[in-house]
Amino acid sequence: MKIVEGGVCAPKGFLAAAVCAQIKKNNKKNDLALIFSEAPAIAAGVFTTNKIKASCVKISKEHLKNNIAQAIIVNSGNANCCTGAQGFKDAKQTAQIVARALSIQPGKVLVSSTGVIGKLMPMANVINNIPKLVENLNIKNGADVAVAMLTTDKVKKEVAVRFKLGNNTVNIGAAAKGSGMICPNMATMLCFVTTDADIEAKALNSALKYCAEKSFNSITVDGDTSTNDMVLILANGASGNKKITINTKSDFEKFRSALLEVMVYLAKMIAKDGEGATKLVEVSVKGAKTDKDAKLAVQAVSNSSLVKTAIYGQDANWGRIAAALGRSGAALIEDKLVISLDNEKIFSKGAPTGADEAVLKDILSKDEIKININLGLGKASATMWTCDLSEEYIRINAKYRT
Amino acid sequence: MKIVEGGVCAPKGFLAAAVCAQIKKNNKKNDLALIFSEAPAIAAGVFTTNKIKASCVKISKEHLKNNIAQAIIVNSGNANCCTGAQGFKDAKQTAQIVARALSIQPGKVLVSSTGVIGKLMPMANVINNIPKLVENLNIKNGADVAVAMLTTDKVKKEVAVRFKLGNNTVNIGAAAKGSGMICPNMATMLCFVTTDADIEAKALNSALKYCAEKSFNSITVDGDTSTNDMVLILANGASGNKKITINTKSDFEKFRSALLEVMVYLAKMIAKDGEGATKLVEVSVKGAKTDKDAKLAVQAVSNSSLVKTAIYGQDANWGRIAAALGRSGAALIEDKLVISLDNEKIFSKGAPTGADEAVLKDILSKDEIKININLGLGKASATMWTCDLSEEYIRINAKYRT
Repeated sequence: MKIVEGGVCAPKGFLAAAVCAQIKKNNKKNDLALIFSEAPAIAAGVFTTNKIKASCVKISKEHLKNNIAQAIIVNSGNANCCTGAQGFKDAKQTAQIVARALSIQPGKVLVSSTGVIGKLMPMANVINNIPKLVENLNIKNGADVAVAMLTTDKVKKEVAVRFKLGNNTVNIGAAAKGSGMICPNMATMLCFVTTDADIEAKALNSALKYCAEKSFNSITVDGDTSTNDMVLILANGASGNKKITINTKSDFEKFRSALLEVMVYLAKMIAKDGEGATKLVEVSVKGAKTDKDAKLAVQAVSNSSLVKTAIYGQDANWGRIAAALGRSGAALIEDKLVISLDNEKIFSKGAPTGADEAVLKDILSKDEIKININLGLGKASATMWTCDLSEEYIRINAKYRT
Repeated sequence: MKIVEGGVCAPKGFLAAAVCAQIKKNNKKNDLALIFSEAPAIAAGVFTTNKIKASCVKISKEHLKNNIAQAIIVNSGNANCCTGAQGFKDAKQTAQIVARALSIQPGKVLVSSTGVIGKLMPMANVINNIPKLVENLNIKNGADVAVAMLTTDKVKKEVAVRFKLGNNTVNIGAAAKGSGMICPNMATMLCFVTTDADIEAKALNSALKYCAEKSFNSITVDGDTSTNDMVLILANGASGNKKITINTKSDFEKFRSALLEVMVYLAKMIAKDGEGATKLVEVSVKGAKTDKDAKLAVQAVSNSSLVKTAIYGQDANWGRIAAALGRSGAALIEDKLVISLDNEKIFSKGAPTGADEAVLKDILSKDEIKININLGLGKASATMWTCDLSEEYIRINAKYRT
């Protein structure tokens, strides 16, 4: 498998475009984008489990019922959530206008939005810019989509990989956005994946769910699950490979592991570029009694504001890791617990190991930090990625709407 | 019922003292304190549910088994938690030395600590200062205890009330500390309550648990439950009232409601003085389907970093309240949900009400903010107190140990 250029346009038969529609007043950057597959594609999605769902989530779920789609329209700057019947009508109209401009059925258009909750979409700005989007569709514009999706993200998040399936070359490309309100549950944030693989709907759904759990569902920035989260994948079959099904085991696993690599790569980018983040933190729990315990433990540490501020301050205040584990709900025996920073043991056998503070400081000065926890009670394990918590997070979120 | 001066020394027969023992290096403020009841008192406690428990929690629980105590020794600057067998020995020795100096049994001494986790207690500093503490015991020193307990708290937290029970005057006094690692579960932080009421152990235990649930268990600063939390109450019977039992209904309820007033007062002070806080926020949920749903909903909103930063920025970004409710796990129907700031409705019938931003800004500029939520699905309700989240929280916690 190798990493290639092109993002969502790396797979054959996909075009993209982005424009500045000023969804947010006085916005100067592109904020409306379109991904288009020249042929109808097998499609799958995972969506937020938040009970408050944006209109675009409702409509995209509806349009995915037959597992076929051909276009994704996405805007940043407005979530079109909590906007009542008018908001729903607006999202529906967006799909209709895009469909007409592309000469496809509205049911083949998926809609996605991100931004502030509770404001009506400036529909004139959306409608007036759709013809321009369609006109600009081009295989060179993958990166433009990745940039147009961003809100408070500092870094564009895209990747594409290429691998062999039999004699055919298959590509998977993807773009994502994250930054705040990131604490996945089934899916989080936005991520659009394109592939030229030929794959049946059942296999595509299965692979996407599996990979979402181990990637976007394993990151947290601030413990808040968004109302607009979605991960969508379009597979147009342009690579000509023998159709992947759940039963073609080797091909399915090759495809799934490539998809997992793409999604974990983007998930880690999202954690690293969390609002105000200065460091990527990987929290690994092993030795848990059950899978549920492993998840509870890894979530409590990854979401702890006290752990995250200590890492920001490069202070090896590991007592906060112990305290978070203790409140997590996971089975825990103090004497069996081992806490390490990278490979440096800090707490073991019920007492501090007396680790050298200078060594710990050195570990914490890096950009990427590993917290390794062994509960010593069983064989279950879990990993999450998070970031540190800085004053910048507060500054970004104190005046988000202004 | 009236509020009186004197804190933990307001009830008859209680003495207190505090000294600077430099538990934290170069500390200039008092950090070791003693509360003493001249007669043995009926005693009760509620303790952290964190599975990692400080040595003092283990010892105080043990000493409370017979429901009798006479002294509380408390230090700030070191939690004596995760310190292994040596830490346990140190806490035990502290109780023994205090007991000897007071000529009482070690089992009548309760031990309490707060501060950094994972460092051994500087025992020489503790031991050398106990004689001075005992020598200084005086009814004038209630406030000194309240100050000596503080860590990053900015404000001392004490209160005392006086009320009639039959022909007798009963007093309840209390001191508390909070600030960070505040997300109660059974009990939180430190709070010591003294009373001269005559009350049986069963009634005292019942009243304390009831009041802890509605006060300290209903606040959050940062979602982290401490390893050292405890609420202790000593009732020495010096007021001479007819003994309160579970069966003397009217007296028991009078006592319990006075105790609740004391504990809620201190709980709100803790939330208001949360690390970096600029505002006290009261979150009320009503119309929930079940008590559990009410609690899930109120906790999700109270713990949301995004809600708290918006309040800090005085930005009525109510979409974050909706999103937190949506992920809380509580039953929720978007069309039935009503969200208000104070009495100003912002979201109702599935859409924004179009509330005047200037009015909302005005509400958010106050020191105390009320978020009122009606889920419209049932009769259950819950209230929590929290604070906003500012850059100051990050500054305090990034370099806590240095």
